[in-house]
This record gives sequence, C-alpha cells and structure tokens, in this order.
Amino acid sequence: MQIAVLLFPDVDPQDVVGPYEVLRWIPGAQVVFPATARGALPTERESLALVANRTLAEVERPDVVVVPGGAGEGRARQDAAILAWLRRVHETTSWTTSVCTGALLLGAAGILRGKRAVTHWMAMDELAQFGATAVAERYVFDGKVATAAGVSAGIDMALALATRIAGPEVAQGIQLGIEYDPQPPFDAGSPAKAPAPIVDMVRSTLRAAAA
Amino acid sequence: MQIAVLLFPDVDPQDVVGPYEVLRWIPGAQVVFPATARGALPTERESLALVANRTLAEVERPDVVVVPGGAGEGRARQDAAILAWLRRVHETTSWTTSVCTGALLLGAAGILRGKRAVTHWMAMDELAQFGATAVAERYVFDGKVATAAGVSAGIDMALALATRIAGPEVAQGIQLGIEYDPQPPFDAGSPAKAPAPIVDMVRSTLRAAAA
Repeated sequence: MQIAVLLFPDVDPQDVVGPYEVLRWIPGAQVVFPATARGALPTERESLALVANRTLAEVERPDVVVVPGGAGEGRARQDAAILAWLRRVHETTSWTTSVCTGALLLGAAGILRGKRAVTHWMAMDELAQFGATAVAERYVFDGKVATAAGVSAGIDMALALATRIAGPEVAQGIQLGIEYDPQPPFDAGSPAKAPAPIVDMVRSTLRAAAA
Repeated sequence: MQIAVLLFPDVDPQDVVGPYEVLRWIPGAQVVFPATARGALPTERESLALVANRTLAEVERPDVVVVPGGAGEGRARQDAAILAWLRRVHETTSWTTSVCTGALLLGAAGILRGKRAVTHWMAMDELAQFGATAVAERYVFDGKVATAAGVSAGIDMALALATRIAGPEVAQGIQLGIEYDPQPPFDAGSPAKAPAPIVDMVRSTLRAAAA
C-alpha cells in the first residue's frame, strides 16, 4: 500500500510528520514524499528542511494521499502541477486526506465540492468557496475524503484512518508505540476553550506570520 | 534564544518535530538542527529525511538542547563526538531536554546521574544504568533537565517548557496555534491503559524494528 505525503516549500512540518508517524506503522505501508522536484524543501521559517524523495510524476497511483498545510499552502494552491496531480491521483485513491490548511489545497483541486470538511480553526471560513460544508470537528470523514483540523489533529485523523485501513488492534498498537497518551498542560487547544485574549493574540500572530 | 535540536541517522521524526513545532513559536527563538555533519539524514526506515543545518562544532552555547530518540539512538550513543558535545553544551544550557529514548543519550553523556527521568515505556528499565531514577510520568523536570516519555510526549514536554521560558499565556497561545486539543480515537496510549495483547504485540514489533 503506497501512502504519498505531499511536500511543498514552507509546509508545516508537524502536518507532515504527525500522520507519517502513524501511517508508516500500518503493515505493508510504503510512505513516499512527492513534490514538484526531488530534494530538500524548507519548511515554515526556513529552519527545518524535509527531503522530497519522489517527483509528482513518479507517484502515479498512491492508495492514500496526505495533503499538509502551513504557511506555504497559499503558494502551493497557485501551482497548477500540484492541483493537477491531486485531481489525477484522487481518481484512484482509496483515501484522500488533508491536515490543517491542506484542506484548502484539496478544495482548490475541486475535491471538497459537496463534502463536509474541516481545516485549521482560523481558515474555516475559506472552505465554503470550494463548495464544502465546514464542520467544527477534530477530523471529518466524508466518503473517501478525510480532513483534519489544525496541525496536531493530523495525529488523531491518522489513527482513525489506520483503524479503517487495518482495524482497531493495529491502530491501538500504533497509538501505544508512539505513546500517544496526551496530557497537555492547558486546556487551550481550540478557540472554544482558550481564553478570548489568547485567541485574539494567536489570530494576530498567525496573520503576521502568513503575511 | 538559541534552541538546538540534535539530529542523527534514523532519528524518530516525531521526536524532532513535536518539540520543534512548539518551541519555534517562543518569541525570540532561533531553532537550529546540528548533527555530526550538515546535510540530509535518513530517519527511521529511510523514508523521510531531515536536513541538519549546523555541525555540532557550529553550535557552541545553545540555551536549550532537545535530544530526540528513535531506532538510531543506539548507534548515536556510540558516537563519542555526540556525547562530548552533549556534555560540553550542557554546562551552559538553561534547559537540557530529551524526548523518548533521547533520554538514554543524555544518560550515556552522564547528564542523568542522580536525576529523576522518563523515556519511552519500553526503555524505562535502561535508565537505572545511567544513575537515573525512572519515573512513569508524561514528562519530568529535575533542575534544568527535562525528559519526556515516548515520541508524542515531546509535544506535552515542550508546552511545559514553553510555560517555564515564556509564561502560560505564550504557551497557551502556542497550544491554540497548533490546535492541540487531542482526541485520540482510543485510550490505548500507555501500557497501563492498552489491552495486554496490544502491549505484547507492540513489544514484539518494536523489538523487531530495532534489531
């Protein structure tokens, strides 16, 4: 089973690695990282670089596609080769998925039309333009399309996907292997739970970072 | 404030990216990725490669050190240059930290002697040989040394560290920014919670993967 995790410049590295860390343990999984060209790609803020080990053309019929988001998503959405690749591989995937603002890339490719979907909480308003219905859940499965909320939600979505692909025993084994017994020091992980001044601060910070 | 996340071949990528994703949002943080040489390094199973952007010699006085673990940790522990670097930078760090079996690297460098510490649940028995007291918590702070449990625990440890460095408002903002409102589909993330047959399966799988 081939799993393709799309890369592009200024991708959010956690969007990439969270699902990868889960899905790579599915028995028989082979994970590849396609981009428009092979080689090292900077992630957000040009600190950690990830290496694309396939071109888009080299990944023709992946069983699973994972589309991450991040600061570079807006530019990736302007890349006709990426959108064409997403449309083409989606025809034969078993699962087409996104994390965070990767949902907007799926949307731009026409894949979310008529679908229920989720993305990072700050980008929820943008889903409607692609004909999607925004649903404020941790992750949303609609047919073979699965979308996850912001960044860290990719781990939860991937565990749910591993359950569908390989069954609950395998998924629980993966969860135990990565010791995913989350104990965040605060209950501030969604705009509904975080104090209002924190929500305002994050809106300003992320808007500035995206500018 | 310079934050150095150590890289080595066959590191676990989530051990690297989880703390990075949190700590990079601390105001004034500059995150670097040192290794014995600059360039792309394979992570576990040779799929995703991460790029080291500094040599060890180029990172002389980091304020924070993060030591990840993974399948390559055993070989990294045999690398005298890595152990010498850890000992040297630990003299002047504000915080010296590890994720997963990265704690064993800290232990081999002599940094855990007399300390309370945690590591991946499968490696807890190995801490005693380094003079550390194993504590089955999500993360443990002892003086300026912080250790996290397996893989995904690096996110929780990094949020706790961000709180100590920059205060609870900043840490809550980071948590909201990465939408860390975890909702794993199972409650199987620790050996105390997972069904016994799942624990046995994971022991076998991870031992085979490490061999």
